Amino acid sequence: MDNKCDIGVIGLAVMGRNLILNMNDKGKSVAVYNRTVSKVDDFLKGDAAGRGTIVGTHSLKELCAKLKRPRKVMLMVKAGTAVDEFIEHALPFLEEGDCIIDGGNSFFKDSIRRTDYLTKKGILFCGAGISGGEEGARHGPSIMPGGNPEVWPLLKDIFQSVSAKTISGEPCCDWVGTDGAGHYVKMIHNGIEYGDMQLISEAYSLLKDVIGMDYTEIAETFKQWNKTELDSYLIEITAKIFYFKDDDGEPLVKKILDRAGQKGTGVWTSVNSLELGVPVTLITEAVYARALSARLDERAAASLILKGPEISLTHDKWQMAEDIRKGLLASKIISYAQGFMLMKEAAKEYSWNLDFGNIASLWREGCIIRSVFLDNIKSAFKKNSDLQNLLFDDYFSGILADCQESWRRVACSAVTSGIAAPALCAALSFYDGYRRAASPANLLQAQRDYFGAHTYERVDKPRGEFFNTDWTRN
Amino acid sequence: MDNKCDIGVIGLAVMGRNLILNMNDKGKSVAVYNRTVSKVDDFLKGDAAGRGTIVGTHSLKELCAKLKRPRKVMLMVKAGTAVDEFIEHALPFLEEGDCIIDGGNSFFKDSIRRTDYLTKKGILFCGAGISGGEEGARHGPSIMPGGNPEVWPLLKDIFQSVSAKTISGEPCCDWVGTDGAGHYVKMIHNGIEYGDMQLISEAYSLLKDVIGMDYTEIAETFKQWNKTELDSYLIEITAKIFYFKDDDGEPLVKKILDRAGQKGTGVWTSVNSLELGVPVTLITEAVYARALSARLDERAAASLILKGPEISLTHDKWQMAEDIRKGLLASKIISYAQGFMLMKEAAKEYSWNLDFGNIASLWREGCIIRSVFLDNIKSAFKKNSDLQNLLFDDYFSGILADCQESWRRVACSAVTSGIAAPALCAALSFYDGYRRAASPANLLQAQRDYFGAHTYERVDKPRGEFFNTDWTRN
Repeated sequence: MDNKCDIGVIGLAVMGRNLILNMNDKGKSVAVYNRTVSKVDDFLKGDAAGRGTIVGTHSLKELCAKLKRPRKVMLMVKAGTAVDEFIEHALPFLEEGDCIIDGGNSFFKDSIRRTDYLTKKGILFCGAGISGGEEGARHGPSIMPGGNPEVWPLLKDIFQSVSAKTISGEPCCDWVGTDGAGHYVKMIHNGIEYGDMQLISEAYSLLKDVIGMDYTEIAETFKQWNKTELDSYLIEITAKIFYFKDDDGEPLVKKILDRAGQKGTGVWTSVNSLELGVPVTLITEAVYARALSARLDERAAASLILKGPEISLTHDKWQMAEDIRKGLLASKIISYAQGFMLMKEAAKEYSWNLDFGNIASLWREGCIIRSVFLDNIKSAFKKNSDLQNLLFDDYFSGILADCQESWRRVACSAVTSGIAAPALCAALSFYDGYRRAASPANLLQAQRDYFGAHTYERVDKPRGEFFNTDWTRN
Repeated sequence: MDNKCDIGVIGLAVMGRNLILNMNDKGKSVAVYNRTVSKVDDFLKGDAAGRGTIVGTHSLKELCAKLKRPRKVMLMVKAGTAVDEFIEHALPFLEEGDCIIDGGNSFFKDSIRRTDYLTKKGILFCGAGISGGEEGARHGPSIMPGGNPEVWPLLKDIFQSVSAKTISGEPCCDWVGTDGAGHYVKMIHNGIEYGDMQLISEAYSLLKDVIGMDYTEIAETFKQWNKTELDSYLIEITAKIFYFKDDDGEPLVKKILDRAGQKGTGVWTSVNSLELGVPVTLITEAVYARALSARLDERAAASLILKGPEISLTHDKWQMAEDIRKGLLASKIISYAQGFMLMKEAAKEYSWNLDFGNIASLWREGCIIRSVFLDNIKSAFKKNSDLQNLLFDDYFSGILADCQESWRRVACSAVTSGIAAPALCAALSFYDGYRRAASPANLLQAQRDYFGAHTYERVDKPRGEFFNTDWTRN
């Protein structure tokens, strides 16, 4: 057993390379392999030079032969068919009780399928969502592992040693749940990231176009906001972005084309919310906003044709900036509440036993949405694990009560000035719709009964009793 | 060939029965069959009594034997596996060149699959979306046929004779396009129907809770609106619904439970828009609003916890009612524009040659969203078949310019009063986002480059040239 490695990693793109170095820093010996084998040699001569416990291999067979049993083979390859291919190619070299870990951004339904498939072959599968980008992978990412529950005791030590830690030392990595639960929670993380980024963009747009701030003032504002409840990685880098100067001394952000790309996980979240019937309106508006941003030529044409109001800049600059901050904070609370609503429904749908406080804790450090805010979410669920909705927690309902006047003023300013703030407005619409015991959906039901005899229930009769009316009768 | 029938219909639920009676009224002889064969006898003794050219059959074999060649077998059964089952069971009794028509609410990707499958067997498939509910089926529905193009000459006469007609006599039925195009356009119809119904519900909510109108005043208002550009079936029945009294003399709509059901076609539209990257924000808000309405207990709990503003009723009742009408009209334009954007993208994605003016014409009568408005859409596309966006047509951009001040006032009132108007606000956000040449998505791209090295394009460089910055450098 001498000289055998603790884990094998397949795929030497930047995420894989950085994760290997991180594992090695934590005392783990790592066998590495890449389909284009020259990259193995490059890595060993490059970033991994002088590290005797990173071992290069030139075939899957060699990689597997170099691993301690039970073997741990981790895939850091592109999500999709590449994962299935590597699994097939690795299987001949694995034995019962060995594990395969997929550390890519895989679709959770694929992870459900792979867990089942490999369990039947006696192999333990782990689908692990990893967030934090290159930096996170190198120095401590957030890791969200799911899969066959028997795999966790074998991986816990390695994963928790490489993951980020909270200030109190807890690892931002813990078992999420069976089969696809880890990749599902990673998907929700990414959806929330879409929402956070969209809200920040809208705040920037309002600071710039409703208040008339210049880029330095905007940078200063985000820097200040980072000392409030909004304290988070994304607000921090936003301030830095607005301070950042191009070679000509102008803010670089001004030169960047406003066409936002996406990698699909936001879309997955929205589609899943529609399938499960959970109103995740904010993330979906964020996804649509990116789609709209891609229509550059159409927007340019529309800007010449479609009329807007005259914009008159606000007079009370600092009051309005504080309103915008509170509107952003309140909207962010709605977005997270919607994300947790979706996870709650998913737990039922896919039979996962999710610990929501724990999930908030996994996101506390290491990942893109890391923030102080997540501590409050953790506390809310630790205080009451049956919490029906995040908005029902005193801390969050209190902030909303405190922010709502500002939030409404900002929404009104956006609407009146013709500056789009789709996510902020969707959040407020959700808040007002959610806190309404009697909604206008009674009319929808009457219409559906009128034209399609779909029947309706009555407020004065037991639920489950259905009525049909001939509406043309009187 | 004597006594053989023009068409066979399988499935004697209300839509099937009514369509058969409609066909028979137009002089077509119809062989009918139902899986539970007692329903065949019931129908012949009931609604079809005395009609010698409606012929009952007790097996698929008998049905097919009773049809003129090329046989036309129309399925009016539940969408899903039942359609595939009936196709399999009917195939042994069909010959090359015969047709199978699916008149159910099938998913368009199933119709693409079925067209291919049956074409290989020499059978011509037609997926026909049918809208108009029971009444439409009986007296003239809107029919949206797609499938194997060779099927159309065989069906045109029957379908156009039973369909609704416009005032100028054009049938609300014409060939839509290959394979799944008919069912796709029916799906968009239903999505738009979701949007229209949601907008009307929001208008009702604002009339009631921001203006303080009683049910009779609301009925009166919708009746008046039906004489304006909003003239449509849904506005007409809404007025009737608000006039309708329960046995105790109270408006019946007041007694209806506000939990809206859905049958999935709205969700299909939203999911498809996410897959194709088209910002169909309004329909999706409508779908989410139904999902939210289903959370009755949660809303009741939230109404006690989450704070709202004091509502003070508006003073200028009629001015505000007119603002609401204009807000509804403008939002409706956005919704249709988004629906046509989605169809334009789908035409590219699925290789359909869609005629958008023609599609508007199909919806002019017979279906749930029938309205005067659709004439204007038809005209816009007839005038310019390359119209990039419905909003660029003079008629629609003119209405939007005229309505926008009112629209903004209504959105502001909703926001300030705490009365949710998610679809109206989403429409306005879209309008303002769409007419913005320079959006805040430059910040999104900067953030993505900061944490994930996703790269960005620059406004001062050619498109397609990508840049990456080390943002921590200065």
